[in-house]
Amino acid sequence: MALIKPSIPKGTRDFSPKEMVKRNYIFDTIRSVFSKFGYQEIQTPTIENLSTLTGKYGDEGDRLIFKILNSGDFLAKVDAQKLQAKNSDSLVSEISEKALRYDLTVPFARYVVMHYHELSFPFKRFQMQPVWRADRPQKGRYREFYQCDADVVGSASLLNEAELVLIYDEALTKLGLKDFTIKLNNRKILAGIAEIIGKPNLIVDMTVAIDKLDKIGLDGVCNELKERGFTQTDIDQLKPVILLRGSNAEKLVQLRSILSTTAIGLKGITEIEQIFSYLEYWPLERANVELDITLARGLNYYTGAIFEVKTNEVSMGSIGGGGRYDDLTGMFGLKDLTGVGISFGADRIYDVMEELGLFPQAVSQGSQVLISNFDSRAETYALPLLHQLRAKGIAVEIYPTPAKLKKQMSYANDKSISYVILIGQDEMQSGLLTLRDMRTGEQRKLSIEQIVATLIY
Amino acid sequence: MALIKPSIPKGTRDFSPKEMVKRNYIFDTIRSVFSKFGYQEIQTPTIENLSTLTGKYGDEGDRLIFKILNSGDFLAKVDAQKLQAKNSDSLVSEISEKALRYDLTVPFARYVVMHYHELSFPFKRFQMQPVWRADRPQKGRYREFYQCDADVVGSASLLNEAELVLIYDEALTKLGLKDFTIKLNNRKILAGIAEIIGKPNLIVDMTVAIDKLDKIGLDGVCNELKERGFTQTDIDQLKPVILLRGSNAEKLVQLRSILSTTAIGLKGITEIEQIFSYLEYWPLERANVELDITLARGLNYYTGAIFEVKTNEVSMGSIGGGGRYDDLTGMFGLKDLTGVGISFGADRIYDVMEELGLFPQAVSQGSQVLISNFDSRAETYALPLLHQLRAKGIAVEIYPTPAKLKKQMSYANDKSISYVILIGQDEMQSGLLTLRDMRTGEQRKLSIEQIVATLIY
Repeated sequence: MALIKPSIPKGTRDFSPKEMVKRNYIFDTIRSVFSKFGYQEIQTPTIENLSTLTGKYGDEGDRLIFKILNSGDFLAKVDAQKLQAKNSDSLVSEISEKALRYDLTVPFARYVVMHYHELSFPFKRFQMQPVWRADRPQKGRYREFYQCDADVVGSASLLNEAELVLIYDEALTKLGLKDFTIKLNNRKILAGIAEIIGKPNLIVDMTVAIDKLDKIGLDGVCNELKERGFTQTDIDQLKPVILLRGSNAEKLVQLRSILSTTAIGLKGITEIEQIFSYLEYWPLERANVELDITLARGLNYYTGAIFEVKTNEVSMGSIGGGGRYDDLTGMFGLKDLTGVGISFGADRIYDVMEELGLFPQAVSQGSQVLISNFDSRAETYALPLLHQLRAKGIAVEIYPTPAKLKKQMSYANDKSISYVILIGQDEMQSGLLTLRDMRTGEQRKLSIEQIVATLIY
Repeated sequence: MALIKPSIPKGTRDFSPKEMVKRNYIFDTIRSVFSKFGYQEIQTPTIENLSTLTGKYGDEGDRLIFKILNSGDFLAKVDAQKLQAKNSDSLVSEISEKALRYDLTVPFARYVVMHYHELSFPFKRFQMQPVWRADRPQKGRYREFYQCDADVVGSASLLNEAELVLIYDEALTKLGLKDFTIKLNNRKILAGIAEIIGKPNLIVDMTVAIDKLDKIGLDGVCNELKERGFTQTDIDQLKPVILLRGSNAEKLVQLRSILSTTAIGLKGITEIEQIFSYLEYWPLERANVELDITLARGLNYYTGAIFEVKTNEVSMGSIGGGGRYDDLTGMFGLKDLTGVGISFGADRIYDVMEELGLFPQAVSQGSQVLISNFDSRAETYALPLLHQLRAKGIAVEIYPTPAKLKKQMSYANDKSISYVILIGQDEMQSGLLTLRDMRTGEQRKLSIEQIVATLIY
């Protein structure tokens, strides 16, 4: 067996214990909120048929899907001429039938179609699983990363949209974020705007341009609009929309007047108003909700509400997003199943929480207490104690071999263990054990009952 | 976009909500016990370098590893002649550099070597992640399945072995198993036996044969031993070992006499005795621990203790196994790091629990309560109530559109929701809402405070 210096593929990560407890804290928090709102967890396989995924993410997406080589003699049935042509693209389908999950949405659509008759609609599901993309890795962009999605399908009610806002609010507040904005838009409003300026076919160009307002400013947006085929008259019409200011209510009043002649635009406004009116019944904890008509997010996909979440505490891209789609399962032949969903960007939320120091200290703890081990007599003395503490539900471990105090203390420190029980000659004689609080360094001689009381508290 | 009837690759599975809550129940229980004993969670990437995995699982294993096709123009640098040869085996390394995790052990070894300087030893880690094998799928054998491993490396202490027995006992007892056996053996005892009969090189043949005692009986084992190169004299010497009966203590006495002239055999006995003597301090809950010298389990891998767990309540293969290995990381150039670990067979445990009806009823619950929705007035009436209940931490949902009673009740039933709050004309007038207990069908008119009290209890 050749010795190799081991490494992992670029864009992938190992998660060590300290990272895992923090990641689990995020996932568990989001999971508990999803559940509280009636969403139920599913999991789909890591491996999907390549035919299930191909064509769903555009040409670029197709290229970024990780394909799995067929098992066994995968070349056996490949045409010799095809091989000689050395055309990778055309050979793929000959030697690969399976691929890694690229997102959670397409597998969910596939799941709904396959399990349609077992499901009770509206079906509210959540899913927290890794996905893989053969993207060029860079800071904050990985080839393997988790998505946390909640979607409800089979219900057109805008109550769902309003509740998804609540889910963002409750989950992010629970995670300790204190100031974040849930931006809200509606595809129908964007369609209405494009209709008003008489360029309904340029809706994508329009939104791509105005989506950049934050980055390139008004002049930049106007230039880009020109490049994308809009006239000065169009732009003059667009400007008041782009520059829409004021409270959500004020924006809606202005929009209603601007879009007064477009049915679809007015429909979008009514939908947004309905969501806001639901939200009036539910005080939000920390979230600001803001109508932002420059918000687009994969516009061709969404047909109604569009969400995006940003923290206002640190500089960071969006930490969540989603929207309503009217034809999720159409790609698999099941028409007219409407749905709406959101996604949490767990990796970015992790970075935000690290930067703001939001992980509770308890989250970094492994065992609660370590029992020292100085010699075989002390080890034997400790064995019944181990059992006693564990029977009380206390996470306790013994240092597994006799070792120097310093080594054992540094082990406890590295594992963020809160207490060490020191058992030496004195302790065995008196039955009073030394309990050291690793955070303060304080040491007390206590009976086992007193130790249990301290640890359980 | 072509319409395709969707399917998933053979040997993979979707997990629907009812399965997920049960699977999570198993994983959460095992996780909590691992943590209680000081084991810390890590995760490694789904994708490893193919070179990390190749050669670690034998030729058959190498074939069963799922390989990932290189991204982009994967044929560009492939030699034209090599392509024409149409030799799949030799082409693999040219067009694939990455592969799916095949087990958790090799990635763990790779992890320990890569992170050696950050780790504090003894390092106790657990890992619960899926693995993939291109095996022929059959009942109970999947191409994607979870492994749940706990290992401690960097400690030769037999306390670790004893604690792993405790972990099996506590986790399986918590899951509701009432009668199971943890079989224990030691590779050194097997080596001693092979030494005694003068065939140390035939240790693998010997153990493969005697491992089959349960299946093919004593005569079958003797025949197989003959076929594998053992003489009648050898077999006469082996028989008393194979037929070893009695309590663990009695077996050890007999073994000590049989193996009295082999140092390694006696070492094995001493190790087993030490583990049993640790266990005397710790009353087990439901586990029987049994010395079984026919137990081998991937013998070439293990160097000391060998574990296997079987339920005695239903007919099922082993639901767990493990052992000590003295050179886990040697394959990556880090010598002499000893370790011992165990694994839970989550899929089989799931099947056992299903068969015995061990999943607690609460585990199948989604939301605790559904609020009915008969018309927009009732919906509006319900909105503040939703907020009130959620503020109390109650998992509550509202049926998102006005619908017939029957439809809403069947929705609640399908989701195993315990209570439905019915809000009609009467309820809105009186402020007393109808709370229906879905398990008993009982309906009561209650104030909101009374409902909260009922739900929180």
